[in-house]
Amino acid sequence: MVMKNASSTIKHAIVDFAINIKNIGVADPRRITHSLKVALAITMVSMIYFLQLFYNNMGDAGIWAILTVVLVFEFGVGATLSKSLNRGFATLVAGVLGVAVDSFASIFGSTSRPVILGFFLFLIVALATFTRFVPNIKKRYDYGALIFILTFAMVSVSGYRVDKIIKFAHQRLTTILFAATTCVLISIFVCPVWAGEDLHNLIVNNLEKLASFLEGFGDEYYRISNGNKSCIAAYKSVLNSKGTEESLANFAWWEIGHGRFRFRHPWKKYIEIGVYTRQCASHVEALNGYLKAKDEAPSEFQNIIKEPCIKMSSELGKALNELGLSMKLMIYPSSSTLHIENCKNAVDELKTTLKVTMIAECDILEAIPVIAATSILVEIIKCVEAISEAIKELSKQAHFKNPTDITPDKAEEHNFLNCGSHLKVAGAGEDEESIIVSVLSDDKIPQELDLGKSKREIN
Amino acid sequence: MVMKNASSTIKHAIVDFAINIKNIGVADPRRITHSLKVALAITMVSMIYFLQLFYNNMGDAGIWAILTVVLVFEFGVGATLSKSLNRGFATLVAGVLGVAVDSFASIFGSTSRPVILGFFLFLIVALATFTRFVPNIKKRYDYGALIFILTFAMVSVSGYRVDKIIKFAHQRLTTILFAATTCVLISIFVCPVWAGEDLHNLIVNNLEKLASFLEGFGDEYYRISNGNKSCIAAYKSVLNSKGTEESLANFAWWEIGHGRFRFRHPWKKYIEIGVYTRQCASHVEALNGYLKAKDEAPSEFQNIIKEPCIKMSSELGKALNELGLSMKLMIYPSSSTLHIENCKNAVDELKTTLKVTMIAECDILEAIPVIAATSILVEIIKCVEAISEAIKELSKQAHFKNPTDITPDKAEEHNFLNCGSHLKVAGAGEDEESIIVSVLSDDKIPQELDLGKSKREIN
Repeated sequence: MVMKNASSTIKHAIVDFAINIKNIGVADPRRITHSLKVALAITMVSMIYFLQLFYNNMGDAGIWAILTVVLVFEFGVGATLSKSLNRGFATLVAGVLGVAVDSFASIFGSTSRPVILGFFLFLIVALATFTRFVPNIKKRYDYGALIFILTFAMVSVSGYRVDKIIKFAHQRLTTILFAATTCVLISIFVCPVWAGEDLHNLIVNNLEKLASFLEGFGDEYYRISNGNKSCIAAYKSVLNSKGTEESLANFAWWEIGHGRFRFRHPWKKYIEIGVYTRQCASHVEALNGYLKAKDEAPSEFQNIIKEPCIKMSSELGKALNELGLSMKLMIYPSSSTLHIENCKNAVDELKTTLKVTMIAECDILEAIPVIAATSILVEIIKCVEAISEAIKELSKQAHFKNPTDITPDKAEEHNFLNCGSHLKVAGAGEDEESIIVSVLSDDKIPQELDLGKSKREIN
Repeated sequence: MVMKNASSTIKHAIVDFAINIKNIGVADPRRITHSLKVALAITMVSMIYFLQLFYNNMGDAGIWAILTVVLVFEFGVGATLSKSLNRGFATLVAGVLGVAVDSFASIFGSTSRPVILGFFLFLIVALATFTRFVPNIKKRYDYGALIFILTFAMVSVSGYRVDKIIKFAHQRLTTILFAATTCVLISIFVCPVWAGEDLHNLIVNNLEKLASFLEGFGDEYYRISNGNKSCIAAYKSVLNSKGTEESLANFAWWEIGHGRFRFRHPWKKYIEIGVYTRQCASHVEALNGYLKAKDEAPSEFQNIIKEPCIKMSSELGKALNELGLSMKLMIYPSSSTLHIENCKNAVDELKTTLKVTMIAECDILEAIPVIAATSILVEIIKCVEAISEAIKELSKQAHFKNPTDITPDKAEEHNFLNCGSHLKVAGAGEDEESIIVSVLSDDKIPQELDLGKSKREIN
């Protein structure tokens, strides 16, 4: 009986583990590809040296090739490139310095040589270890400093004579170059994972998550519909994206041009957008607190400000959605300003409503959380404006496609960029949104827009 | 002239760099100690092998010793221990598996041997690489998986016969054990940096930072004093402490008992306290927004709720300060509950004030930010309560000293824990705080408290 129980427990544990493993693969299939790529690189490098063994007996080089592949092959192209370059340069510099120190120590004869070597080793290793605390070095050259220490220590105490060291260093460098090149080539040409692209997608996703919260907030708050709870809670992950964004931006810095991103794409700007997005997410977190607190019907006071409140949150959602979409398609964000303006109009509307309302009529205690929630919405407007400005700057720096580039008349640029509000003035009303979305998703100008433009010209 | 300019620019750059380096050392002198410790370990290990070279000519082993020190020696004891143990076990397991695979492949004769070896190598490396994505393995055994791949690949393609492999594996393991032990010993006995202690101090500091914001907030908001701005802004770093806390807790898990912390101290609880602290910090961030927005004199409405508002924020600050202090001294937090109660009383007071005030008298638009700020303060009470609960649980799990342990009468425990409020009832008034602080900072019971106790008994 006990045996049976134990075996079923073990069986359960194994099944759970297998399901867990499967989920990890399903969540990001690139993990499976990555595992196969690493296995391919190690098997290739190992086999080449294994086969060579029978002819040249150069077993030592094989070890260094395997070591290089294991330590250098990372998930993304940027990380692999960064480690490969760091390893190559650090080995070269440390090798040269090691030979120099060794030659210098040799002058003093065999008794004082170990003392002098030990002194230099201690000094240089201590300095190199300390430089690893310098933020800029830590960020980009940490692995290089590590390899520098390793190679320097190995070369300076190898005990070989200079001519042998040089032969040995040459062999080591060739091996490392061969292994690192193999890693870089496999990493770039077999299902590449670009840190830059990941960063771009992460920022777009985060904007979309906040947008879907804000678009759903109004309805949820007023119990109009039983909104999609999972959509509402998705923003939580935005709060903790700082570390990921920074390391992706750091790796993206090392990457060559790929897909829609050129070499030296302004990745730094993504960090800035990330900062504002997280600020926005922390306000959304506070807003979510008021959502949870409310499980009864809307209060009287809440109903008074219902309309501007719902408008504010849905316009904020739309603005963020447009910003996310324009980043996704890499097009200059022309319509987000319009939604932000609509938000500000809603705030004015709210103020007017409040001025005419006799608050004394309502229960002030009941009004407090409603006022607080509304106040947070107003704060979010500032964040969204900051995000919008940052994305506009990014689109200039990264030469995003401009909707005007498609029209023959470049002089119309300014008018075109503000077409949303013009269209509104011209009476296009609620339709302007679908037009802008279609501008963003098509490369050619849709007919409606031409219509809008001609209307504008008539006006 | 151009030469002079260039040389002065270079001079400036060097001076700046030197100042930068100096600041990094001054900010945390343990960085300098760490650099010297690493240099010491590498020099020791290198010198031992350098001197041996002349007798035994075992140059290869020296390389592995240096490699181990460079890769294993980390800033904290926990990280060094974790890497050493990972490296040792992974080498052992991978060595045994490598020999097994090699022996199996040898059965099939020399033509098919490379193919079979290559197949197993590919399979096992792919599997091991994939396990590095499993969160629990990634957290604690990532380095072990890396070393497993490295050793397995090296052993299985070494091309040696089994007896030679065993000799070679034995030598490798001895070298790694020697180098890793050196690292661990230096790391523990020369100015140790304990991740556990760092985590404990980080949490205490974060609580103190939030406390000093909240204690200063009331005065700052009502322009009573020109509070210390740097104190006010210190909370910002709390928002981004998640990563540091998690990695410190992870490393602390590996550490042996040290100072006031036993082996298996409940480090997980610190993560929980950290989560609530950050939640609190994000509310404080929102509160800070209202501080910045206000640069005129307090409005009429603001003055109405001045007293409960200031009381709330200062009591919240006191509660957090007490919680921080009790963690610092590792004493059960007995008085934080009192301050939280005071806060709640202030909320009731605020409600009463608002009920009698005719809001219509004031400008509703002016009242909105004030109401929003007050509402955030109310939210913070919940966070502080959660922090208080978590710290109480921690003090139970970690067997913090209990103030009652000092009194002879254990039955008085409950009364003693609530002595603060009793004292207040008994008319001790504003003094209860200094008493509690002195309880927290002294091991013996101060006389005043005995007085309070006797008063209580009389009542």
